[in-house]
Amino acid sequence: MLEHFFSPKTVVVVGASREKGKVGHDILKNLVQYGYKGRIYPVNPKAEEIVGLKTYSGLNEIHDKLDLAIIVVPAHCVGEIIDECAEKKIDSIIVISAGFKESGVEGAIREQYLYQKITRHSMRLLGPNCLGLIDTQSCLNASFAADMPEKGNIAFFSQSGALCTAILDWAADECVGFSKFISMGNKTDINEVDLINAMHEDENTKVILGYLEGVKNGKDFIAVARKVSKKKPLILVKSGGTAAGSKAASSHTGTLAGSERAFDAAFKQSGVIRAHTIEQLFDFARIFSYQQLPKGARVALVTNAGGPGIIAADAIERSVLKMAELSKDTIETLRRSLPSMANVYNPIDVLGDAKSDRYRFVIENVIKDPNVDAILAILTPQAMTEIEKTAEVICEIANRTDKTIATSFMGGKRTESALKIMCQKKVPNYPFPERAISAIEAMYKYTLWQKKPAPETKKIVADEESVRTVFNQIKKTGAAYLSEESARHVISAYGFAIPKSIIATSEADAAKAAEDMGYPVVMKISSPDILHKSDIGGVVVGVKNEQEVKGHFSDIMRKARHHMPEAEIKGIMIQQLVAGGKETVLGVSYDPQFGHLIMFGLGGIYVEVLRDVTFRIAPVDINEAREMIREIRSFPLLKGVRGEKSVDMDAIVENILRLSQLVTDFPEIIEMDINPLVVFPEGKGAIAIDARIAIHVQQNKRIGGNAF
Amino acid sequence: MLEHFFSPKTVVVVGASREKGKVGHDILKNLVQYGYKGRIYPVNPKAEEIVGLKTYSGLNEIHDKLDLAIIVVPAHCVGEIIDECAEKKIDSIIVISAGFKESGVEGAIREQYLYQKITRHSMRLLGPNCLGLIDTQSCLNASFAADMPEKGNIAFFSQSGALCTAILDWAADECVGFSKFISMGNKTDINEVDLINAMHEDENTKVILGYLEGVKNGKDFIAVARKVSKKKPLILVKSGGTAAGSKAASSHTGTLAGSERAFDAAFKQSGVIRAHTIEQLFDFARIFSYQQLPKGARVALVTNAGGPGIIAADAIERSVLKMAELSKDTIETLRRSLPSMANVYNPIDVLGDAKSDRYRFVIENVIKDPNVDAILAILTPQAMTEIEKTAEVICEIANRTDKTIATSFMGGKRTESALKIMCQKKVPNYPFPERAISAIEAMYKYTLWQKKPAPETKKIVADEESVRTVFNQIKKTGAAYLSEESARHVISAYGFAIPKSIIATSEADAAKAAEDMGYPVVMKISSPDILHKSDIGGVVVGVKNEQEVKGHFSDIMRKARHHMPEAEIKGIMIQQLVAGGKETVLGVSYDPQFGHLIMFGLGGIYVEVLRDVTFRIAPVDINEAREMIREIRSFPLLKGVRGEKSVDMDAIVENILRLSQLVTDFPEIIEMDINPLVVFPEGKGAIAIDARIAIHVQQNKRIGGNAF
Repeated sequence: MLEHFFSPKTVVVVGASREKGKVGHDILKNLVQYGYKGRIYPVNPKAEEIVGLKTYSGLNEIHDKLDLAIIVVPAHCVGEIIDECAEKKIDSIIVISAGFKESGVEGAIREQYLYQKITRHSMRLLGPNCLGLIDTQSCLNASFAADMPEKGNIAFFSQSGALCTAILDWAADECVGFSKFISMGNKTDINEVDLINAMHEDENTKVILGYLEGVKNGKDFIAVARKVSKKKPLILVKSGGTAAGSKAASSHTGTLAGSERAFDAAFKQSGVIRAHTIEQLFDFARIFSYQQLPKGARVALVTNAGGPGIIAADAIERSVLKMAELSKDTIETLRRSLPSMANVYNPIDVLGDAKSDRYRFVIENVIKDPNVDAILAILTPQAMTEIEKTAEVICEIANRTDKTIATSFMGGKRTESALKIMCQKKVPNYPFPERAISAIEAMYKYTLWQKKPAPETKKIVADEESVRTVFNQIKKTGAAYLSEESARHVISAYGFAIPKSIIATSEADAAKAAEDMGYPVVMKISSPDILHKSDIGGVVVGVKNEQEVKGHFSDIMRKARHHMPEAEIKGIMIQQLVAGGKETVLGVSYDPQFGHLIMFGLGGIYVEVLRDVTFRIAPVDINEAREMIREIRSFPLLKGVRGEKSVDMDAIVENILRLSQLVTDFPEIIEMDINPLVVFPEGKGAIAIDARIAIHVQQNKRIGGNAF
Repeated sequence: MLEHFFSPKTVVVVGASREKGKVGHDILKNLVQYGYKGRIYPVNPKAEEIVGLKTYSGLNEIHDKLDLAIIVVPAHCVGEIIDECAEKKIDSIIVISAGFKESGVEGAIREQYLYQKITRHSMRLLGPNCLGLIDTQSCLNASFAADMPEKGNIAFFSQSGALCTAILDWAADECVGFSKFISMGNKTDINEVDLINAMHEDENTKVILGYLEGVKNGKDFIAVARKVSKKKPLILVKSGGTAAGSKAASSHTGTLAGSERAFDAAFKQSGVIRAHTIEQLFDFARIFSYQQLPKGARVALVTNAGGPGIIAADAIERSVLKMAELSKDTIETLRRSLPSMANVYNPIDVLGDAKSDRYRFVIENVIKDPNVDAILAILTPQAMTEIEKTAEVICEIANRTDKTIATSFMGGKRTESALKIMCQKKVPNYPFPERAISAIEAMYKYTLWQKKPAPETKKIVADEESVRTVFNQIKKTGAAYLSEESARHVISAYGFAIPKSIIATSEADAAKAAEDMGYPVVMKISSPDILHKSDIGGVVVGVKNEQEVKGHFSDIMRKARHHMPEAEIKGIMIQQLVAGGKETVLGVSYDPQFGHLIMFGLGGIYVEVLRDVTFRIAPVDINEAREMIREIRSFPLLKGVRGEKSVDMDAIVENILRLSQLVTDFPEIIEMDINPLVVFPEGKGAIAIDARIAIHVQQNKRIGGNAF
């Protein structure tokens, strides 16, 4: 996949330059100097030779099959070169040049033309407006970066080229090695989805990292991330989420930033490990790259200093990890051999005078303890401390155990050479214990994701046709919102229970209907023309008997005719009055990158004031629906407090799935509320009292997951 | 204050050693080698000379006035040496030796004796079980640390000695300089309060840092922190807060860890800037040490890379800071001179090819903008970037402006020498922009604290005597909980409004009482012997008229006599039925380090399920009480939603103050709930429906703020 980008046999650089410091020069130099074994062809009509290579005045002069073209000419010449590439049957193109979408309207149009050319010729394109890419396996440095990173098993892609240069420089110091390193630029063609797929298949890549400001296609992203993350950790930093951030994002690469919530849901649903800062991205990357996944959550701390031990224990307590409780055997063994002042419980304090042998003894015993899944070894440089030797000892043990080991050697100059040793021997060190704990936590959470069962879906039996009919009618009228009756019809067609209701046209009919469904009832004027029914006295709640029904019937009719003499009146709706149960809310919103978001929360003030809601991207499976319910803060209220019975959780799950399927079947729904969905005690189901549905009605344009 | 510790004219080291690597040797060597100007006397009966100094066999051999004694002898000999020090009139002692509280019961007893000796002789003691201290001004290194830090304006104290060694090593790399550096050890005598006071007065200290696992005396800590933080930033890391952390803490230095909540409240109330990690402690320290405080929250970002600009903008959005909106003038000026592709709005993108002159031009203009309070300059190493020169430019501007400037030069080797320049010129650099933003945020929050008005207190008029009588009676009985009647009496004496109630002994009296207070009423059997009144049918709620009163009266009496014939019955209480209003909860708990914590929250599920409560340490002032109300998540419910009126906030404030004063006047209260406190709309007050009070009754021991 994309193999001509990562291991081409031949590369042509169009726009190669003699001038040092120019991008067209640096790329050629990078290709030559890092040991790339393929053939390199510089194209420059004005030069004879650049960095020792014969130059060509045009592509047609080169008599070789060309795998990869790197284009560095001014933006307005790129199109022409692409055509020449097509003639030469080059299928893989990197456009380094800027001057496209990121530079305004003209550039955006130019980029669109570029995209059309590429697709017409079935080429793949990386960029434009990018730094290029690096593949350490094939020694290909097809970028104008100033460095070649070390070989390693971390693949990195970035939506910011400048960030790449900073990271390469930083990585050299931290001995972080890469398998692939890719600057995506404007993502006209190749985007995160292609790259994640390529890295998934790459056997030299163990960990996939990325910096994103948005995704090109949310549905595809979720699908590929979900697949890949089951096999390899996929760690991403997403920026541009907040209001100010996304303002910066659109002026940067013109990406639609997408709401934070949609990204949060998408990452959760697809097993993406979200790093919150670039620092954290690499904190996580190193442990995944170096170490094995922990089998469980239990961490043992081994330290020669009390304070940092407490700091680490605090960090564990705040995480999903647990402090390991050492087995009796381990405690006994430690107690027998350690000085009496040492703490043999977790955190194990080996004391300030511990040399490497004491660290060895303790770690060897702790690593054997069945109650321990991971170890963090903390070291502060004391007078007696054998810093390098202790590093050696830890590395040696780490390399023969299947448990996770990280270290936090704290200090500066004194710990420097120990850090080098640990880097080489693949034990991740963190300058402060909190960062080590959060890296171990990321690993543990990832194991939970890996163990998660496959999505359990359920086909909802629904009357899709009748909903389609309703929507088509609405679209003809050009209205965005469905009437109350239509909305009720739609949700009912998808299996939502709704209050019983009948439209009565006479007092006698009304009384009979009320009798049939049982008192008390609600009475409402039924008219497509009367929107604010309460305002004209068109609604009465809690009507208790036949006499009241009849009285209100004539009363409501009279008021309606009086206030709105022109309105078409269909009769009066007699509706079951739903009593008891707990109010919840289901909702739908539409995110331009990911499509429909399903919302769930407790009704009333919990949604409106406390914003205690949760989101998932549709379609939602059974487990995700269950997670949504458990995730809200007010979950205990559903579960039942003060001896109350639990509400019918299965009914909520069922209704979330119905909603998910409805919006999947009808992407034109852009906004929807079922508020309240009254949920009764276990086994008693739920009733949707009110629904509000808005659909997209712009002509000839259907909003769908992939429509943008 | 403590001047003999920081600038003694003479120092004696008792337990000086010839053996390299021994603590008694290293301390002496440190004293000698870093330029300390005073006279140094080593005491060691077995040596003649150590590191070039004549040794003495005992203190009495030294014929000089001794200011500071450093004791390094084994724990069991320390007591004897202290006596000798007393004879020599030495008033300042550092005990380096371990083997005290941290090592078990025997050590704890030894430490208690030590404390008694010290106080008897009016000496001050640092330690035991500590690393010693360093004062860079007097070139005094009275520690066995392996390094002498650079001079600087940061003072640091630590409850963990090992952390000190790691920090010194780390600081050398990061060019962080210190004024004072102190390891507190077991804090037998000198503790954080003494040190904060000393640093407050020290003119070489601009920023005070500390690592704490607990405080010795919460009230004193709050008092001194509140005072000092108005003048100098006081930045603390507190660990040992969580369950696992505090378990580690007590096995470490035997400190009572104190609940996280009490510390949170104490830090909030005393202006302490809380750093959450050691890394953050120094991230904050550097900006406070180097830069001036921002006048406001508006930050401008100047960057040569889009991605990091977005990352920083995101971080600002998540903080209390704001993205500066540049003035029209600034935007015009930038637009005129920058390349057309540059973004002249915040974040200002100077583009990847920006050299130092473009940075200069932009920063000089932005710094003049009245809409900007602080600047973060971001740099990634691109081909054209003049890294050192840009650093010089930024430093030069930073040194002539009164606005806050920080940088985020991202990279490794390439940025190294620029970082050195910025260190020297006092511009704080952060490897990633998020850390820079959170440092600027800490500064801005500190300015808010500095501007906060002085505590506004209010003396509550209360019948203290009658409460004392109640408590004394209870104490005699040995009961911990007050009866319902007594609790009502107590809160009423402190001005809480309670429902009207009268004990009636006849049907006629009952009917009259109910008539007077207005229907409906509550009727309750009144008997000190009947605790579970409802269980025997002794409570009726919502009695509506005279007839009902009379009927229930005889009925309740009959039931009570039937179920509990032995009970003393005082009559039937007729109580006003409180309707309307919103239920809130006030509470008190007792923290061993800080004393009484006042709690406030919304009643019912908000407290029980959502734990939506807030705490402050008593005494609470008017502003703090107001903050408490605004702080809970459900505050909008008090403020009124859906067109409701606001509740009577002043009444809540008033009641918080009453509660605060009650527990201040009566420290024996260890637990208290006013649940619910029903609050009515604005101007209508609040009524405490129910109160539960527990007092400490152990004989001859009164729980007070300072009693532990």
